[in-house]
Amino acid sequence: MKYIAETDFTEILSSIRDLIEKQNQGALLNLLIDLHPADVAEFLTDLKKEERKYLFHLLPTKIASAVLTELDTPIVDQIIENVSDQRLSTLVDIMDSDDAADIISELPDEVAQRVLNRIPDKVSDDVKGLMLYGEDTAGGIMALEFVAVNENSTVNETIDEIRKAHEKNGTIHNIWVIDTNNILKGSVSLTDLVLATEKSRISKIVKTDVKFAHTDMDQEEVAILFRKYDLVDLPVVDSLHQLVGQITIDDIIDVVEEEASEDISLFAGANDEEIQEDSFLKISIIRLPWLMVAFVGELIAATIIQQFETTIIQLIALTFFMPVIMAMGGNSGIQSSIIVIRGMATREISVESTWRRFFRELRVSLFIGFVFGLIMIVVVGLLQGNFVMGLMIGITLNIVILQASLFGGMIPFILKRVNVDPALASGPFITTMNDIFGLLIYLAILTASIKYIV
Amino acid sequence: MKYIAETDFTEILSSIRDLIEKQNQGALLNLLIDLHPADVAEFLTDLKKEERKYLFHLLPTKIASAVLTELDTPIVDQIIENVSDQRLSTLVDIMDSDDAADIISELPDEVAQRVLNRIPDKVSDDVKGLMLYGEDTAGGIMALEFVAVNENSTVNETIDEIRKAHEKNGTIHNIWVIDTNNILKGSVSLTDLVLATEKSRISKIVKTDVKFAHTDMDQEEVAILFRKYDLVDLPVVDSLHQLVGQITIDDIIDVVEEEASEDISLFAGANDEEIQEDSFLKISIIRLPWLMVAFVGELIAATIIQQFETTIIQLIALTFFMPVIMAMGGNSGIQSSIIVIRGMATREISVESTWRRFFRELRVSLFIGFVFGLIMIVVVGLLQGNFVMGLMIGITLNIVILQASLFGGMIPFILKRVNVDPALASGPFITTMNDIFGLLIYLAILTASIKYIV
Repeated sequence: MKYIAETDFTEILSSIRDLIEKQNQGALLNLLIDLHPADVAEFLTDLKKEERKYLFHLLPTKIASAVLTELDTPIVDQIIENVSDQRLSTLVDIMDSDDAADIISELPDEVAQRVLNRIPDKVSDDVKGLMLYGEDTAGGIMALEFVAVNENSTVNETIDEIRKAHEKNGTIHNIWVIDTNNILKGSVSLTDLVLATEKSRISKIVKTDVKFAHTDMDQEEVAILFRKYDLVDLPVVDSLHQLVGQITIDDIIDVVEEEASEDISLFAGANDEEIQEDSFLKISIIRLPWLMVAFVGELIAATIIQQFETTIIQLIALTFFMPVIMAMGGNSGIQSSIIVIRGMATREISVESTWRRFFRELRVSLFIGFVFGLIMIVVVGLLQGNFVMGLMIGITLNIVILQASLFGGMIPFILKRVNVDPALASGPFITTMNDIFGLLIYLAILTASIKYIV
Repeated sequence: MKYIAETDFTEILSSIRDLIEKQNQGALLNLLIDLHPADVAEFLTDLKKEERKYLFHLLPTKIASAVLTELDTPIVDQIIENVSDQRLSTLVDIMDSDDAADIISELPDEVAQRVLNRIPDKVSDDVKGLMLYGEDTAGGIMALEFVAVNENSTVNETIDEIRKAHEKNGTIHNIWVIDTNNILKGSVSLTDLVLATEKSRISKIVKTDVKFAHTDMDQEEVAILFRKYDLVDLPVVDSLHQLVGQITIDDIIDVVEEEASEDISLFAGANDEEIQEDSFLKISIIRLPWLMVAFVGELIAATIIQQFETTIIQLIALTFFMPVIMAMGGNSGIQSSIIVIRGMATREISVESTWRRFFRELRVSLFIGFVFGLIMIVVVGLLQGNFVMGLMIGITLNIVILQASLFGGMIPFILKRVNVDPALASGPFITTMNDIFGLLIYLAILTASIKYIV
């Protein structure tokens, strides 16, 4: 397998395009057969829909199967649309159990059933078993391919087990040690195995403080375990502490990336899968709900402003500064909530330190509000030639920033307590609420003090 | 080392607090000595500043050194404030080279110099060498601890090398193969080593298609290599292709998390390090610049509105819908830009597909704009009893959403072309620009059509 440098990528991509157009299957195969499946997947992703299907159709089973596991969901959906059940079964049959389960759960129910019927019983039972676990749990991301030996085995016997597993699984890092009831007892690293004498018993070199996940553990918790303890693989046990699977670091990197992307996308009321999606209608429908939340919220803001029509007619200049009030409230609120949400996601913020953080946000927003309030007094005073008005708008801005930061900082905590993903709360929701409160505070305070201003 | 379940964490933390208050050093040591350094680091993070310093002071050198490498920068800074040069040198001396370089580069220059002078020449030369590389490059994150053997070695000799390295380095996954000039030739996995006979030559089992990084490769590129090819470690070479270091997956998980956090934080004009920061003044100063950008932008918006004072006096209802226009523009713009920025960060969006994505965004925003424009006509028509006004505001909303999505989607591409981090552009900047353009479009169109409305 060849390693493609970034600089060669564009060149090879355009050769592939050329060859597809010329329908030169021989040359295409020659080019692709040497590449790492991850590279083929990257080329497929960058092609147009029809080119993708053509190219995938050409790939030999082994490569096609490996490539399929590297692709993102929307692309997989497109590609397998036109693949026969027969070929799909062959492709799935040679995948690792966790990849097979992922692909099959993407299929429409009847297709999935037909594919499962065509693959050997052993494989299909494994896949069905895996599909029972929640998608975002340790059970959902674990594979059934791992090496486990009894604590009474010798090093030599263990090496034989590795030889058998290696042909199917590739690289191995840790061997799990179990007793006769399949209960997880410990681990042996390959390093320790290499350094042990061949006839030693595994029980002599086993490490018994092995870390593990339960099948129902959330994948984000699993990722935190990997990150905290610098793991490369982790055994998964059921409620009886029996070894049922293994999670490897390459799946965890994807989880970390995915969870971070989810946070950032939820933040915008967008969706990460969009990136690969081709249908503009699907994308629009993904985006509409959050925009609708914002839309309705801002219509409420519109009726609030309407209530203050009399004040606005008396002092039209109030409308000039509405955007500043809204934007400063919105931005301060988002800053507070991002810090809190990221802190909770990476576990750097614990419930213990909630109150400390709350008071810190209070001080930060008081300071920031004070700075901008002061500038506002000067700016409005100079622009409008009315320093009383400047003073009132400055004070209001101070209060709005304080309110927005506390609101933005506290909402994620509250949601966390009631077990809702805090990232959901952010972006459009917090901004819209802060627009409403900000305008209400602004117009109310200025209405109350209008006799001193005009 | 014990493994702490999440449920026990709070309980142990409060015991630690109790013992610190009672100054019961013996019991504290007994408790801490069994824990994984990552757990000790987590406890330290959750303690108050003075408690942290007290506890860290108690730790035996070996544990203290390991804990120090697990902590985040602001906490490290606090803790080492009061640690003597003598102790700091001892702590740094037993760290892996990359961790030592990280800690030393955090120190004030004179302190760093004094610490470097106290540690053995070999170590201090290594650390100084590493500190020459850019912080975010392969050279900056690599370690000098790895196992390399000559291609002519036997398996047995290689195992001896592993034995020597193991005492210092812990777990090993791949052995790098070099020639007599230290040029990287390939790799041997531990799995292959275990399965080979003891007297085989390494040249028989070496894989020559090994992936590698150059010292100046960006850490984000390195992370993409790990993720794409499912690596657990990667050799680093200099410009002569000589092997100089190794990057392991645990460092990469941190990079992935860090880069995603950076994107999400830049988005809010915030900063990830804030999470651990205690000083409210420092946090405020980090947040002020982006808020200032928004502030100035919205003041420009204020003067724009002022230009349309005559229109607003004629039709005060225009001010009611200013928030809707601003919010819909802002949110659509952010959605477009987040999709593009995440796509570029995870490499799912290539320059090749730029135009395709541009046209997709165009269609999405036309559709979304049409939907909300239509709703707006009805809502304004009913609320204001004026359907001509509703029609004009609806059309304007349509145009503003189109403008904002294209602006939000294109700016990151443009910044990427001129080599600026696209995440920088987003959040406050895009929202503010869209507020300005949105209000300008809104007020200009309605001013032009006011004779039909009033």
